[in-house]
Amino acid sequence: MELWYTEKQTPTVGITCKISRTLHTEQTEYQDLAVIDTEQFGRMLVLDGMVMTTIKDEFVYHEMISHVALNTHPNPENVLVIGGGDGGAIREVVKHPKVKKATLVEIDGKVIEASKKFLPEIAAALDNNAKVKVLVDDGIAHVRDKVGIYDVILVDSTEPIGPAEGLFALDFYRSLSRALKEDGIMVAQTESPFFNANLIQRVYRDIAEVFPIAKLYLAAIPTYPSGLWSFTMGSKRWDPEAVDETKIPELDTKYYSAEMHKAVFRLPRFVRALLK
Amino acid sequence: MELWYTEKQTPTVGITCKISRTLHTEQTEYQDLAVIDTEQFGRMLVLDGMVMTTIKDEFVYHEMISHVALNTHPNPENVLVIGGGDGGAIREVVKHPKVKKATLVEIDGKVIEASKKFLPEIAAALDNNAKVKVLVDDGIAHVRDKVGIYDVILVDSTEPIGPAEGLFALDFYRSLSRALKEDGIMVAQTESPFFNANLIQRVYRDIAEVFPIAKLYLAAIPTYPSGLWSFTMGSKRWDPEAVDETKIPELDTKYYSAEMHKAVFRLPRFVRALLK
Repeated sequence: MELWYTEKQTPTVGITCKISRTLHTEQTEYQDLAVIDTEQFGRMLVLDGMVMTTIKDEFVYHEMISHVALNTHPNPENVLVIGGGDGGAIREVVKHPKVKKATLVEIDGKVIEASKKFLPEIAAALDNNAKVKVLVDDGIAHVRDKVGIYDVILVDSTEPIGPAEGLFALDFYRSLSRALKEDGIMVAQTESPFFNANLIQRVYRDIAEVFPIAKLYLAAIPTYPSGLWSFTMGSKRWDPEAVDETKIPELDTKYYSAEMHKAVFRLPRFVRALLK
Repeated sequence: MELWYTEKQTPTVGITCKISRTLHTEQTEYQDLAVIDTEQFGRMLVLDGMVMTTIKDEFVYHEMISHVALNTHPNPENVLVIGGGDGGAIREVVKHPKVKKATLVEIDGKVIEASKKFLPEIAAALDNNAKVKVLVDDGIAHVRDKVGIYDVILVDSTEPIGPAEGLFALDFYRSLSRALKEDGIMVAQTESPFFNANLIQRVYRDIAEVFPIAKLYLAAIPTYPSGLWSFTMGSKRWDPEAVDETKIPELDTKYYSAEMHKAVFRLPRFVRALLK
């Protein structure tokens, strides 16, 4: 018997993966959670029927949500990750030599538990890392009463439906700005330019309203809809395209590198047009 | 009744698209040819069960196989496209103000006919363009006896199995070098870095053996395996990364732009590692 898992990424297109077995399924307080073992991408975390991460291609997303901001800020000592319960972003954050403290605020503790158990390569930094603090809490509530605390905040959310809806709102970006220090930087994952143009336009406009520097960059992620993914950065002072690439520290990465730090902001014309 | 077309891009992963109808199917002398109408991507040309091009995302492939070389060569007057029977690459080539002659050599005349009939937006330049010459012929045979003729040659092939196998061979790259003028440039589509690492390594090594400048660049194409596609350039004199981007002419494109001409050569670390 052949088992195939198909995610309809839109109502009319999907990705389908041959699976060897289902390792875990549960209904959490917030979402439907599954871990399956695919032949192409290895173990895969699926939330509400959508691919969140896989062993084979997770490096792209986790490196790219983290290192672009960390290598734009000259001294990213205190970093917050909102969402990201699989631990992949935190694992990348603590690679950076200047990071002293990395806090994860994930609303769904079951995502953390399942990731530690079934995706240890991704979740490794969630245990036994003195720099890391893990909180099971609502990210929106967490930042609401913080003022001038963080150097970098990464919004590693699920899709903008269900539990993550409030993470794509203007009020939330204002909260992030308050929670950041006077030269802080935020980055949010902002979906596919091919399939989610309206969302990208709205989020970019909102982030540009709150932050003096707003820039979008791209990365190629095979298991995400269309394979092309966007991240939107809001920065109070530091321009990611003004970085001296020769000063970027050598990091143990597979996708991000100093050579492409600025290049990822050079956008295809149809993506640039979304930001006008 | 819902109809879905699924391409297994590897034995263990596929793309699946909802289709409204099948417009055309035939067995040509060389391959199985189909044109289907998909809801997500519009009309889609399928050869031997593999997506070749779609109305919605064809612009990426056709612009990127063409304009990078055309804007690297200072005077690309005489251009050859091998394969590319859908006409998309030729359509882009004749946009360039310096191109005087663009020759298409496609082995399968049925691809040209089907494209003209069912994909007129892509095939438009194949008829009624004084610069364009269309030959139904074997591309390998066509270049074999040519010496110092072309400024730019684009190898717009299908996958390296079946009719296109000979287009991924060292001897063929030597033929291309002979057929090019002393400062000529070739570009070949070279598959996905995520799924076809071995092919990329071999082709890059072969092109680097024949041409003094060999460089690989990337583009995001949703309907191609993994969504990330590579092109390999062999150049006798001109370095695509030494171009003055401010001198690139304004072209009617949706993906390629002067701002990204050099950036596409800044590679993810795992891709860079393939070329070592």
